[in-house]
Amino acid sequence: MKKNKPLLIFDVNETLLDLSPLEAEINSAMGNDQASAVWFSKLLHYSLVETVCGHYHDFSEIGLRVFEMIQENYGRSLGSEQIKKMLSRISELHPHPEVPRVLRELRENSFELIALSNGKPEILEQQLKYSNISQYFQHIISIEECKKYKPHAATYKYALKKADRDADDAYMIAAHGWDIAGAAYAGLKTVFVGRKKLPYPLAPEPNHIVQDLKGLKGIFTK
Amino acid sequence: MKKNKPLLIFDVNETLLDLSPLEAEINSAMGNDQASAVWFSKLLHYSLVETVCGHYHDFSEIGLRVFEMIQENYGRSLGSEQIKKMLSRISELHPHPEVPRVLRELRENSFELIALSNGKPEILEQQLKYSNISQYFQHIISIEECKKYKPHAATYKYALKKADRDADDAYMIAAHGWDIAGAAYAGLKTVFVGRKKLPYPLAPEPNHIVQDLKGLKGIFTK
Repeated sequence: MKKNKPLLIFDVNETLLDLSPLEAEINSAMGNDQASAVWFSKLLHYSLVETVCGHYHDFSEIGLRVFEMIQENYGRSLGSEQIKKMLSRISELHPHPEVPRVLRELRENSFELIALSNGKPEILEQQLKYSNISQYFQHIISIEECKKYKPHAATYKYALKKADRDADDAYMIAAHGWDIAGAAYAGLKTVFVGRKKLPYPLAPEPNHIVQDLKGLKGIFTK
Repeated sequence: MKKNKPLLIFDVNETLLDLSPLEAEINSAMGNDQASAVWFSKLLHYSLVETVCGHYHDFSEIGLRVFEMIQENYGRSLGSEQIKKMLSRISELHPHPEVPRVLRELRENSFELIALSNGKPEILEQQLKYSNISQYFQHIISIEECKKYKPHAATYKYALKKADRDADDAYMIAAHGWDIAGAAYAGLKTVFVGRKKLPYPLAPEPNHIVQDLKGLKGIFTK
């Protein structure tokens, strides 16, 4: 169903929320400045392992188990409770500085906003509440509702259905090349939020590339 | 079709071949001892991004493009040709020390062996030839033949079909938790080759866990 303005679907981790305090905590605990990068990348990999195998565990559970698998690389052997406590900081992240204002302005301009995350529902709700941006979204959707991980097409289609919109009437806005890739293949328009990173060059080019959310104003609210 | 002895399907990178010279080269070029871990993990992630999106690029192409995406994290800006040259060392790896003897003994005991890799066909052939273990395999299969990446069930089924075997008559032998997970979900029996790593705990337990290929002798050639 066509409405006046395009639907804007936002990824959450890294796109809206600044993961650096969690990264710093992991890197400090493992004594290595790349430990969080290895962990997050393996978490994403294993989430898709579940999806291609037709199985599902929630994102927090995969995150914990993957952490248990890799910590020996760093000569560490934290127990599950210690790891859980460390990773729980993901519920207490702040938005990147420009995020609240841009979301508010988009709402004031009558855009409909969705938050769509791989994170499990409770964590996603806590994250948006803690960072005080929850109020800007008409729908807050965890992929747990369809039990496939982004960038599987089912996740974007699920969000579109909830908002009663067509793919070509929606933008996926994300700081991850893989997320933008999947959304483009599912027929959505895309905005890649660089935050100093590059999009995945083997997927269709994003419709727009911006450095942070301030760049959205030039696209949607000229 | 049942035959006398189970079919043994081997993963190649890390399971048979020692990746450490490639890892050392990447880490040295990036000035960070975790750069190769980040790269390899992201390569695996993006291979599954392609698969869940219903698209395909070969493993070398994804490896190159992912490398281009991450090198800025390490303050580097190598050109494509330089990166390709560095990554081409994957064709010149040696087997782990115990590998040739164990493969030879399995062949002498009339087991049928398959090499099944995410790598593209030319690279896979070069790898097994260079490491001088090519002669032990009845089939050398790149997942490029079915254009889905492991651990998608289609990859294991493709290998079984080539060998005319049933899933419950075959073992997947791999050093990666995700590979073992997918094979188990596809109905194969599994041997996880630890090489100091842990299996993925959210998948069915491997039928056997061994530290290196010497452990196969206790299972298959008592």
